[in-house]
Amino acid sequence: MNRIPVTVLGATGVVGQRFVRRLRNHPMFEVVGIAASDRSAGKRYRDACEWRLDGEPYAGLGDQVLAPSDPAEAFSPIVFSALDNAPAKEIEPAFARAGAHVFSNAASFRMDPDVPLLVPEVNPGHLALLETQRRRRDWKGSILTNPNCTTTVLVMALAPLHEAFGVETVIMTSMQAVSGAGYPGVPSLDIMGNILPHIGGEEGKVEVETGRLLGKVVDGLAVSDPMAVSALCYRAPVMDGHTESVSVRLKGNPTPDQVREVLAAWKPLPQRLGLPSAPEVPIRLHTAENRPQVRRDVELDGGMSVHVGRIRPCNVLGIKFALLGHNTERGAAGGSVLNAELAVSQGLVS
Amino acid sequence: MNRIPVTVLGATGVVGQRFVRRLRNHPMFEVVGIAASDRSAGKRYRDACEWRLDGEPYAGLGDQVLAPSDPAEAFSPIVFSALDNAPAKEIEPAFARAGAHVFSNAASFRMDPDVPLLVPEVNPGHLALLETQRRRRDWKGSILTNPNCTTTVLVMALAPLHEAFGVETVIMTSMQAVSGAGYPGVPSLDIMGNILPHIGGEEGKVEVETGRLLGKVVDGLAVSDPMAVSALCYRAPVMDGHTESVSVRLKGNPTPDQVREVLAAWKPLPQRLGLPSAPEVPIRLHTAENRPQVRRDVELDGGMSVHVGRIRPCNVLGIKFALLGHNTERGAAGGSVLNAELAVSQGLVS
Amino acid sequence: MNRIPVTVLGATGVVGQRFVRRLRNHPMFEVVGIAASDRSAGKRYRDACEWRLDGEPYAGLGDQVLAPSDPAEAFSPIVFSALDNAPAKEIEPAFARAGAHVFSNAASFRMDPDVPLLVPEVNPGHLALLETQRRRRDWKGSILTNPNCTTTVLVMALAPLHEAFGVETVIMTSMQAVSGAGYPGVPSLDIMGNILPHIGGEEGKVEVETGRLLGKVVDGLAVSDPMAVSALCYRAPVMDGHTESVSVRLKGNPTPDQVREVLAAWKPLPQRLGLPSAPEVPIRLHTAENRPQVRRDVELDGGMSVHVGRIRPCNVLGIKFALLGHNTERGAAGGSVLNAELAVSQGLVS
Amino acid sequence: MNRIPVTVLGATGVVGQRFVRRLRNHPMFEVVGIAASDRSAGKRYRDACEWRLDGEPYAGLGDQVLAPSDPAEAFSPIVFSALDNAPAKEIEPAFARAGAHVFSNAASFRMDPDVPLLVPEVNPGHLALLETQRRRRDWKGSILTNPNCTTTVLVMALAPLHEAFGVETVIMTSMQAVSGAGYPGVPSLDIMGNILPHIGGEEGKVEVETGRLLGKVVDGLAVSDPMAVSALCYRAPVMDGHTESVSVRLKGNPTPDQVREVLAAWKPLPQRLGLPSAPEVPIRLHTAENRPQVRRDVELDGGMSVHVGRIRPCNVLGIKFALLGHNTERGAAGGSVLNAELAVSQGLVS
Repeated sequence: MNRIPVTVLGATGVVGQRFVRRLRNHPMFEVVGIAASDRSAGKRYRDACEWRLDGEPYAGLGDQVLAPSDPAEAFSPIVFSALDNAPAKEIEPAFARAGAHVFSNAASFRMDPDVPLLVPEVNPGHLALLETQRRRRDWKGSILTNPNCTTTVLVMALAPLHEAFGVETVIMTSMQAVSGAGYPGVPSLDIMGNILPHIGGEEGKVEVETGRLLGKVVDGLAVSDPMAVSALCYRAPVMDGHTESVSVRLKGNPTPDQVREVLAAWKPLPQRLGLPSAPEVPIRLHTAENRPQVRRDVELDGGMSVHVGRIRPCNVLGIKFALLGHNTERGAAGGSVLNAELAVSQGLVS
Repeated sequence: MNRIPVTVLGATGVVGQRFVRRLRNHPMFEVVGIAASDRSAGKRYRDACEWRLDGEPYAGLGDQVLAPSDPAEAFSPIVFSALDNAPAKEIEPAFARAGAHVFSNAASFRMDPDVPLLVPEVNPGHLALLETQRRRRDWKGSILTNPNCTTTVLVMALAPLHEAFGVETVIMTSMQAVSGAGYPGVPSLDIMGNILPHIGGEEGKVEVETGRLLGKVVDGLAVSDPMAVSALCYRAPVMDGHTESVSVRLKGNPTPDQVREVLAAWKPLPQRLGLPSAPEVPIRLHTAENRPQVRRDVELDGGMSVHVGRIRPCNVLGIKFALLGHNTERGAAGGSVLNAELAVSQGLVS
Repeated sequence: MNRIPVTVLGATGVVGQRFVRRLRNHPMFEVVGIAASDRSAGKRYRDACEWRLDGEPYAGLGDQVLAPSDPAEAFSPIVFSALDNAPAKEIEPAFARAGAHVFSNAASFRMDPDVPLLVPEVNPGHLALLETQRRRRDWKGSILTNPNCTTTVLVMALAPLHEAFGVETVIMTSMQAVSGAGYPGVPSLDIMGNILPHIGGEEGKVEVETGRLLGKVVDGLAVSDPMAVSALCYRAPVMDGHTESVSVRLKGNPTPDQVREVLAAWKPLPQRLGLPSAPEVPIRLHTAENRPQVRRDVELDGGMSVHVGRIRPCNVLGIKFALLGHNTERGAAGGSVLNAELAVSQGLVS
Repeated sequence: MNRIPVTVLGATGVVGQRFVRRLRNHPMFEVVGIAASDRSAGKRYRDACEWRLDGEPYAGLGDQVLAPSDPAEAFSPIVFSALDNAPAKEIEPAFARAGAHVFSNAASFRMDPDVPLLVPEVNPGHLALLETQRRRRDWKGSILTNPNCTTTVLVMALAPLHEAFGVETVIMTSMQAVSGAGYPGVPSLDIMGNILPHIGGEEGKVEVETGRLLGKVVDGLAVSDPMAVSALCYRAPVMDGHTESVSVRLKGNPTPDQVREVLAAWKPLPQRLGLPSAPEVPIRLHTAENRPQVRRDVELDGGMSVHVGRIRPCNVLGIKFALLGHNTERGAAGGSVLNAELAVSQGLVS
């Protein structure tokens, strides 16, 4: 099969670099363009930014010249966007108008009811929103989004429970990695030996996006599930990987063992299709009572699976457990790439 | 006033050292004895252990010889115990039998219905259990305990809310400091850049002790409040101070502003009495949205106040907030000393 | 005695805040002005910046309005400058021209041969340069500087050795705290669990300033000592306090014991004068083989003493030892304030 | 080729686990035995210890039963020893007597003049000591050792310089990872946000072993080079990888460029032989002024190469540079395995 040409917008940032690294040698996609802000466009990749990941610097594209973030100069049928919210608001629609399918990591369009907010294991059916989107917006292309990193990890664990039992309420305290704030991001003076009790806008995103992802498509529009979600988000001195402390009320009051069985048996669409970025096992279940641990577990499966451990009764909501997932892989670049794989497998690009 | 002679049991450990440091130059107490296990007894304090706190090493008692943990050799009318649970089970009753009032940081007797489990701001009336204790156990002295460090911090914030509104349910995720595990405690290989999802026995203690502290004395025995408490306890790479992420359902559904007012107005007994170790303001309310922060705030007031910030609505339980307190001061040595100050002020020792 | 009015330039930064905190309730000085860049001037202190230190926020001056960095609006006889090098180059001479004595923490004028580069314990005689400075520059006031933080700590240990034996060569590897880079400073993504092998310009400053501080005044100008100094500077994940690993060749090859005696006996001018910010003991000698440790020792004496331990033979240069000092107190704000105390004691301001 | 059966002694510790992980699927060796102390012998590997590395737990050998550390029960022609020094002193000779070639990571026999202290890139000729060893000790097998981890990293950088120019003196300050102390090793209370100025016995080992490794074999015995080496060893809050700050005097005073060329051109025996564990490039040269960095660089090449950067003039000794290497791979398990590969390639086992 011929690989589909793709462009990465915002390639110089940390998430942009993860996109580039993931897409090099990808079986379905070929990076033809890397784009950046006007300040960096025209420079070679290696001159425009420091490479902040391990592995081969610039994923071997260090000599490639950065294009401007303009469809006239950087068009390709599929575009991955690691843009910040403000520029995303202008640039992503420009690409969609020009016919590109934009897989965006930005928050700008996530909650529009005709824009798929997508985690392939969770709500692949939301691709159906694209028809409405095309009709309403008169774009040749489209915009598809992935949720906030903290939401992504949470809905991966909730989806099979929602399907099997029905999720009624969720309380989740997160201990989030510094990489979620990008570079330079969190000053070391603020976070070394410290816990920060506030991450701007994060709690609201998790509370709104979770119901949206576990909701339905009705008459071509997304309708959120009415479950009650409360998020309490903290920053912790950890590099990569968000730890989430979850309590949940499920219909029918299942036991921890029943919950465990449902999570273990879950085999959603991306795994059945064998999509290239789909982890073989979407939820890794831990039995050791002191696991999962972010530093020791989060890089497994290229950061694409989530980890659940310590499933036990909650005196208040019925079930509680420890949850862990990779914020910049599953929760950002990897999630977007998997979205594209799903969309292509469902015929988005002909 | 003549100072009351006191002995510190378990003086070589980290909590024991905090006891000694707090009690030096104390207006009500005078350290006459420091005791340790048989392995250390007979040695000078400075030779038996490293001093792990800042300030003057060994609080100036480096040359004092450690006594064995035996009332025949280390009796005083008041005894502070930093013993581990196992030795506490034997040694503390021996001292109580000999006539000492033992203020214990150990878990061994906390849940006995005739033993005061005490936080002076929260349940000073539980001193009334001592009458039952004396009657039942036929000790000349007594045992009084302080709760687990995580519980202590939690009930400080819940007590005024329970009084003003009534607490129905609580979900609390803790991010606990390494100092809570003593020395050598948590290996750096386990906690650097990591979060541990399990602290042995901690969740159960918090869930049981909270209702006990907020409960009543009925017919001379402690009766726990039936509130539902769910604790999810994590270890984080922080030196001193437990951060607690709290959601709570209060009767009558007060607003965040009403909750804030109640916490601000709280002036419990130790503050009214002006006990030496009582912080002037028991709950420090923060208005900056990124406070309290453990590294920046926890040492205020000698670690004896707790900190509350980000009081806001919770979609599930009604109110949520960020809570912070010092685990080895308010939650251990300082808490025990304040218990003794309260008991003496109420006539325990004549 | 009436307190001398002083102004703090650059009051919003981390070093500026330390100046303000140190100068509140100072027996010789009274903060009458706090100044900042045009962006902040006219705002109240509390609105212009976050307070990043512990203790009382804004040292009680939160409501004071920030002046512009202009002698016409913020003159006082003594001025403390926490400015960055570029603005310092313009602003400090403007104040000196207007008659102020500027005690600067910036690098801009340090190596000018008519500007005192001063550590009061080390080279108080360099105040004599002021006469030349006044003659040459025709300023009514003057500029006096303190060295780079790493240099300051190093020369505190070298000065008594240079006096007693003569320092011939020094090799010093530093492990420097993140606070040395100001705020926001070092990104957590760069330093958590990491060591950085480069701090821009630092090594050159230490190598040049050390000889200057241990040099002489000849014909009214500073003449550096010709000793060879090699500095290797690293950044380590530590909050406050620079650890320095020092090897030194001394004339006459003294033994470790002889070195220890000289350091222990050192009682330089500020200590003899009893200047308010001078630590009683300028060099704290540690005998425990695992001390000094930055987290446990650096805050002693308000961060104004330096710490030496593990004095032992060096196979290459003769003597080696572990050295530690506070980079933002002794190495910045505290050092500048002590300079002013010395200058006033010597009659700088009448 | 048939793989040679090997046994790992001390398989439950951190270094032992690294041995097992490295030797699984090794082209020359096959793990047939894993042995441990009497306390663990007889248990399955997974029951005797926690697995502390990433990758497949227990390297797939979780069900294998641990043998006692006794040649009668755990003999194989090649044995890798991760034993501590005290048990190594008894157990390693017992295996050698029984005919095994023991590749030891312990310090017990390193400085014996008839025991090869070996880094294959540095002194492969020291294998010649085995003849003397056999003659003197009358063992059918032998003992071969690798140096202390800090020494290993240092001599990797010094060896090509010694060959090209001659090393006269070395001053080295290390910033060592916590993994070097094993498990549980360094308490988090001691090292978080801290630097420790002392590592028991480390400095002496580096000072003595360096000359030994860069020395000669004369009349069948090892003779150390008389170079002067001074080591100043610190512990830093880093997981894996020792950073070394090196100053060196070389004969003929080469320039930094000449030093760089020599390091770049170095192609020692293991690389020429293509031994399986030899990194293609033994010394990775960095040109970015802020590299190498331990967290970002040390895992490259499976931790088997060392990293050099910032080669620049030293005012005192002539040349200084930043050095980095993996303490538990190149400096322990990986180093020992490479020793065995070299020895087998030179006909040790027939």
